[in-house]
Amino acid sequence: MHDEIADSLRRSARHVIEDLRELAALTSTPEGAQRVAWGPVWKRARTWLQDKVSPLGLSPEPDAAGNNWVTLPGEATRTVIIGGHLDSVPNGGWLDGTLGVLVALEALRRYAQEPKRPVTLRLVDWADEEGARFGRSLLGSSAAAGRLKVDEIRELRDAEGTRLEEALRDSGVMLGTMLNARQQLAAIDAKAYLEMHIEQGPVLESMNRSAGVVLGTFGLERNMVRFVGQAAHSGSTPIAMRRDAFLAAAATALECREIARRHSTPDAGVVCTVGVVKVEPGIVTAVPGVAEISIDQRALDPTILAAMYREAQEASRRFAADNGVSVEWKPLFRIEPRPFDPHLIALCEEAVREVTGDAPRLPSGPLHDAAEMVPHMPVVMLFAYSARGLSHCKEEDTPDDHLEKAISAFLLLVDKTVASVATG
Amino acid sequence: MHDEIADSLRRSARHVIEDLRELAALTSTPEGAQRVAWGPVWKRARTWLQDKVSPLGLSPEPDAAGNNWVTLPGEATRTVIIGGHLDSVPNGGWLDGTLGVLVALEALRRYAQEPKRPVTLRLVDWADEEGARFGRSLLGSSAAAGRLKVDEIRELRDAEGTRLEEALRDSGVMLGTMLNARQQLAAIDAKAYLEMHIEQGPVLESMNRSAGVVLGTFGLERNMVRFVGQAAHSGSTPIAMRRDAFLAAAATALECREIARRHSTPDAGVVCTVGVVKVEPGIVTAVPGVAEISIDQRALDPTILAAMYREAQEASRRFAADNGVSVEWKPLFRIEPRPFDPHLIALCEEAVREVTGDAPRLPSGPLHDAAEMVPHMPVVMLFAYSARGLSHCKEEDTPDDHLEKAISAFLLLVDKTVASVATG
Repeated sequence: MHDEIADSLRRSARHVIEDLRELAALTSTPEGAQRVAWGPVWKRARTWLQDKVSPLGLSPEPDAAGNNWVTLPGEATRTVIIGGHLDSVPNGGWLDGTLGVLVALEALRRYAQEPKRPVTLRLVDWADEEGARFGRSLLGSSAAAGRLKVDEIRELRDAEGTRLEEALRDSGVMLGTMLNARQQLAAIDAKAYLEMHIEQGPVLESMNRSAGVVLGTFGLERNMVRFVGQAAHSGSTPIAMRRDAFLAAAATALECREIARRHSTPDAGVVCTVGVVKVEPGIVTAVPGVAEISIDQRALDPTILAAMYREAQEASRRFAADNGVSVEWKPLFRIEPRPFDPHLIALCEEAVREVTGDAPRLPSGPLHDAAEMVPHMPVVMLFAYSARGLSHCKEEDTPDDHLEKAISAFLLLVDKTVASVATG
Repeated sequence: MHDEIADSLRRSARHVIEDLRELAALTSTPEGAQRVAWGPVWKRARTWLQDKVSPLGLSPEPDAAGNNWVTLPGEATRTVIIGGHLDSVPNGGWLDGTLGVLVALEALRRYAQEPKRPVTLRLVDWADEEGARFGRSLLGSSAAAGRLKVDEIRELRDAEGTRLEEALRDSGVMLGTMLNARQQLAAIDAKAYLEMHIEQGPVLESMNRSAGVVLGTFGLERNMVRFVGQAAHSGSTPIAMRRDAFLAAAATALECREIARRHSTPDAGVVCTVGVVKVEPGIVTAVPGVAEISIDQRALDPTILAAMYREAQEASRRFAADNGVSVEWKPLFRIEPRPFDPHLIALCEEAVREVTGDAPRLPSGPLHDAAEMVPHMPVVMLFAYSARGLSHCKEEDTPDDHLEKAISAFLLLVDKTVASVATG
């Protein structure tokens, strides 16, 4: 990379960091960011963005689902979309979501200066990614993706009893027509979707790397698994006569980790978590008659996720039989994996390597709006270093030097993608 | 065994069963036995017993701790004590405790008919074995054994706020002098202590045996074990970077069972139970940062119990290290094992075998008043079959045929013990 280009990217990155701080100052309390979707602070953030794009001669245009689009036309209708979300959780951080929007803003600024643009660039500020108020995350992007089931959100209310439908209407979004956002997206000649986000995990920090290439968002199999044996007195019941539900659950939990280890490769780790553990009667003098655990399995490859799920079920049945207890699985939640586009992953890898000297690859555990775009166009994400893996809190941070490098890498990815899309 | 003796034992056994039913009718509601120590129903049971020994020319004499003694003098002061307790838990069963007292009553009846008695026989009805009202079990027997710490019970109150001290005074027992029961016991030339009790466990039922020889009461090591790692997001934290407190606890729990299995012999099983399991934060999307389990280990041999405890600690530290978490042990409760007398165990084995054709040997998980006598004289217990291992509830039962055989075996044990003590 030429020094000139590196300097330009660095200047742009510093500009983005200034914007981030300015927006944080405007939309935070001492407890953190307060840009909860559909509320007054979020609207203030959107007005601020409008003021920022106005000098470029542009202005945001909402789609039917409340997503805001800023379009910088080029010589071709072929379009590179760069996305993020201005909304935050209550008492949130300064980077989650906004980083994606403000690098997109900077990308528009950079291309607006060009005399000729080979492709069209679009910034999208997705509406209500967090679902913090009404409990439905990825609201705007899932509408644009055509995956939102309007009937499932019709009755949603916030903690005060306000209906989602009302809050949307107040922002100019009609529940009955919000799925028109799907046709609006389809009308775009979209060739690539790029999104930058903080990792919200500890991987890049542990490697001391500023940026990472995201391979896709994990698919998820989340189940409650209930073992039922027989409660018995801890003093008078010999080991051989017990039907200990907890020990069956414990063995299953340990085996689920082994299943995850077996299916992990250096390039594509998978995870499994037993986060809920409940036993009955739960007293010191009784063998547990009932044990219930949550098993949360995640992988990027649907075949691997299906195998993990099957092997966990087999293991649970084996350990149940070994302990003379029954076992029952109850699905809680399921998401299909959304692997990103190999060509864009390769471009992202080049960009990250050119700026930071290395290109760690990692899956995304949390979902992102990018996942909703996967069925519709080539997608990739770039993650920035997250201090202590923290997000959704005021402590959320990325140190400036890492942030500068990660933003530079992302803007370079934009350049590479624009060039690639331009040449078809 | 001569048919004549067998017939006599059987008649006596049926007499005991009649007494048991009579007492149950007098002291139960549809919810079960209500002979809670120091209360009116318990006092009614004691009056009933007084009426039963009166025809023998005997009457109960309380010691300083409220235990009731009925003495049938013999040619020698050498004494065989036969014990039990009339008190029950609220909504208790018809056999727990009373069986021991009423077989003792029957033994007195049988010996009272003899023209010459080589040794002295004493029935003891221990006071407040259950500790159901004030939370201190083995109250009377531990006072007689000199092990009771009066300062530890001085402030005890029941659920209504009534002081233990008051309830005792109301029954003629003075807190300040109740330990005099120790000297009163020491004044007895006691050569053997016998006690019959329902098993309160599933072992004899599983073997379809009416009676079993009790080898002693388990010693107990009960600890809370707390593992502290780091809570983390279930999606964004790779397996290799986790410090999962629950998986360390799960592995420790499973290993504790293996430790118990390794230390069990056909003749002396040991047990270990993880009954309490708590994790934090305890949500589906978080790796548990904290896991707390109770580990309750029991064995008859103090050396084995100490080894089990040491091995469990070592295992917990190994699994803690494997998972990058810390571990801390906090003692909850500790009881030393009370193995019974080998000579009396042999007599009990003879008696049970002669009546039932087999002599299963088993430890007692629950404590009994007998355990308090171990430091002071040779002790043995005989267990009767417990339907479904249930006790402390109105469903507590032993089918009549099993009960008759078990009582016959116990009365035969009394004969054998008397003969043995008579010959020195």
